[in-house]
Amino acid sequence: MHPTEVIRTKRDGGTLSRESLEYFILGHCRGDVSDPQMAAFQMAVLLRGMTFQETVDLTDVMTESGSVIVFGDIHAPVVDKHSTGGVGDKVSLILAPMVAACGAYVPMLSGRGLGHTGGTLDKLESIPGFRTGLSVEEFRAVTKEVGFAMASQSEELVPADSRMYALRDATATIESPPLIAGSILSKKLAEGIGALVLDVTVGDGAFMRTEREAGELASLLVRVGTALGLRVRAFLTMMDQPRGRAIGNWLEVREAVECLKGAWIPDLMEVTLTLGGSLLQLSGLAQGLAEGRDHCRQAITSGRAYETFLRGVKRQGGEIACLEAPENYGNAKFREDVRAPRGGWVTGMSTRAIGELATDLGAGRRRDGDVIDPRAGISAEVKIGDRVQPGDLLATVYASDGDAALAAVRHLQASIAIGDDPVDPVPRIAGVVDAEGRLPSGALS
Amino acid sequence: MHPTEVIRTKRDGGTLSRESLEYFILGHCRGDVSDPQMAAFQMAVLLRGMTFQETVDLTDVMTESGSVIVFGDIHAPVVDKHSTGGVGDKVSLILAPMVAACGAYVPMLSGRGLGHTGGTLDKLESIPGFRTGLSVEEFRAVTKEVGFAMASQSEELVPADSRMYALRDATATIESPPLIAGSILSKKLAEGIGALVLDVTVGDGAFMRTEREAGELASLLVRVGTALGLRVRAFLTMMDQPRGRAIGNWLEVREAVECLKGAWIPDLMEVTLTLGGSLLQLSGLAQGLAEGRDHCRQAITSGRAYETFLRGVKRQGGEIACLEAPENYGNAKFREDVRAPRGGWVTGMSTRAIGELATDLGAGRRRDGDVIDPRAGISAEVKIGDRVQPGDLLATVYASDGDAALAAVRHLQASIAIGDDPVDPVPRIAGVVDAEGRLPSGALS
Repeated sequence: MHPTEVIRTKRDGGTLSRESLEYFILGHCRGDVSDPQMAAFQMAVLLRGMTFQETVDLTDVMTESGSVIVFGDIHAPVVDKHSTGGVGDKVSLILAPMVAACGAYVPMLSGRGLGHTGGTLDKLESIPGFRTGLSVEEFRAVTKEVGFAMASQSEELVPADSRMYALRDATATIESPPLIAGSILSKKLAEGIGALVLDVTVGDGAFMRTEREAGELASLLVRVGTALGLRVRAFLTMMDQPRGRAIGNWLEVREAVECLKGAWIPDLMEVTLTLGGSLLQLSGLAQGLAEGRDHCRQAITSGRAYETFLRGVKRQGGEIACLEAPENYGNAKFREDVRAPRGGWVTGMSTRAIGELATDLGAGRRRDGDVIDPRAGISAEVKIGDRVQPGDLLATVYASDGDAALAAVRHLQASIAIGDDPVDPVPRIAGVVDAEGRLPSGALS
Repeated sequence: MHPTEVIRTKRDGGTLSRESLEYFILGHCRGDVSDPQMAAFQMAVLLRGMTFQETVDLTDVMTESGSVIVFGDIHAPVVDKHSTGGVGDKVSLILAPMVAACGAYVPMLSGRGLGHTGGTLDKLESIPGFRTGLSVEEFRAVTKEVGFAMASQSEELVPADSRMYALRDATATIESPPLIAGSILSKKLAEGIGALVLDVTVGDGAFMRTEREAGELASLLVRVGTALGLRVRAFLTMMDQPRGRAIGNWLEVREAVECLKGAWIPDLMEVTLTLGGSLLQLSGLAQGLAEGRDHCRQAITSGRAYETFLRGVKRQGGEIACLEAPENYGNAKFREDVRAPRGGWVTGMSTRAIGELATDLGAGRRRDGDVIDPRAGISAEVKIGDRVQPGDLLATVYASDGDAALAAVRHLQASIAIGDDPVDPVPRIAGVVDAEGRLPSGALS
């Protein structure tokens, strides 16, 4: 076999055997297959696609490129959740301790933000002292002690993905369903989990713009995960407006803490409880989704979820004082309000533009290596369907630079559309995909 | 602009502006665009294609990535010939001095062999002392003094091509007509020539297996070259059997010398005279193709072509004694004959397999950096359509390793098909493509 043969087969629309994929992917890890060869291969995969079996094999080979964590000494479900990304998406911060408080274990490896979407690691690192770089052994130990751990990808786990992913962003080969499936699922499989819920976001602020695309990706992820032994369910969730209010790392941690303390931010908590409840159902800790949601709600109202969160933050080096009294922790230097220029109904938001604005304020990265300003961001105070009067608060900008803050105010005004006619709010969850296929929305109640 | 935008546009089937191509190609030369990005781009071009205008712009941008030679002090046509490669193709060695002897100047930058096809530079380097690495200034000076020069690509000329081409072989992105056109024509345009003939080979031993593919490539090359100011004509020539008899570097030089001394090896000289005659016609040194061929024939029979060759070899450091008395120069250590196992007619040859066999004997490279054995090779003594008796000589193997020579004999017997029924020889030139389009074969006479 030769690397060019593998590339040529895919380039010409052929099907690759497991052996070919193993030769190529593991060869890339060892350095026998060069980065340009991997880049050409990934472009060929993007343009030619992969069969279902190829995608399963790709995912399996990627998983086996490194260690796989074994939680043999934990006699309870080990589960995780993954999101395809969005604006203001802090569900993981609430869900992990909440589900852990219900008796499951959540070893959550996360990513950083890039472009208009935020990353869980960046959010956690806005807590002074929080360490996201854990060794696999420490990650395992924290999960076992606390019930959940949140850390960055280690080079020991799925090295194939780190190498392949690093090339995809620079070579415009992100948007390939089989490559996405391989990347997401190999990392989750390496965590040693048994059940997984997927939050496949849809809309202007998401990676997938249409429900059809999102549905196809969700279905692929569920089928590949199932073929590799996971219990998996995927939810299509709306990202046509920011999730919750806060966009920006420290702002989002604060909002997550409020929710863990019992605040009811409807769109955010609806998604969090449904995903968390589903995990309990999939792993046998609840009989059905309704019971799973109930368990999750109780974990919050009882305070156990919040306590678990504090224990986890402390265990990973974070200062919990700033979580318990965030008002003492200080805000961004500049703060500017965005007010409604007219009365009417909020009819839509340019969610991606709002995410990019937060990135430009310092909440995210335009490219690898950009430094994050943890306190920068936006708090969006209205939702689609809200009625506003002229001068009502639409959003607040937080920034370390006064000019940037003022510029953001102007952009935000243009990103929130106000019309004369009322619009109905759209449900936050647009669909569910199970191993048996797409379920009717009724399956949610 | 950002490199990924350029890749994404092509990936999604869009059309790139000249500015985008300039940004991307020159960016790659400067190191701002990475090798993986270029590899992904080339795969996208291979799978999505390019418009005619994109191909013209690509070629022009590649040409302008380095210096372009100016022959302002030569008041005669400056011309060249390019072949898409084949087995036993030593036309350049005869054509360059022949055309130079007719009053044109031939600054010929050539390549090395890779895979089953040979390279002019490797052939020339089988002449002791011959230097193919000339600076641009020396290359120009040799052309002016001798009438022709044959050298390797310099980093000063078309650096974009060296960088792009180095990636294409390893990433299975060779077979893209726009990339082939850009690579071939940019190098020829940088030579500062006014007229070009192209030998687009067709068949099992060629890069293009079918006449349709070869015709399309020929047409693209002619149209792009014409758009960039060249007078160009392309010939589709058959590579269904080795060209001439010799395959292997020193063997081919010897055969070329025989032809320059007047030996008539029909298939080889038919192509050489037609390509050479066409160059004289295109550059105004002959009224028509017939007159061009006559001039070429006279250059050979008068001895002027051979004298010009010797002058060129001497000027580039080669020992001419071994050309004048090749029998004194020594042969490969092992020599084995291949004999007809039965009587009948030669009905076909596995030309690519024969080329690969010669490569494996040491005549070529399997990969960059492999060392060439200049005396290794094969002499194929029969042509398709020949009648043979049992025990007749089909070919001779030359090698430095006795076992390899014996193995080659067995493979060669399997690569030359002998049947019971006579077959008609196929004409060596299957078509002509001019700026006006494909010409009828009658245009050749």
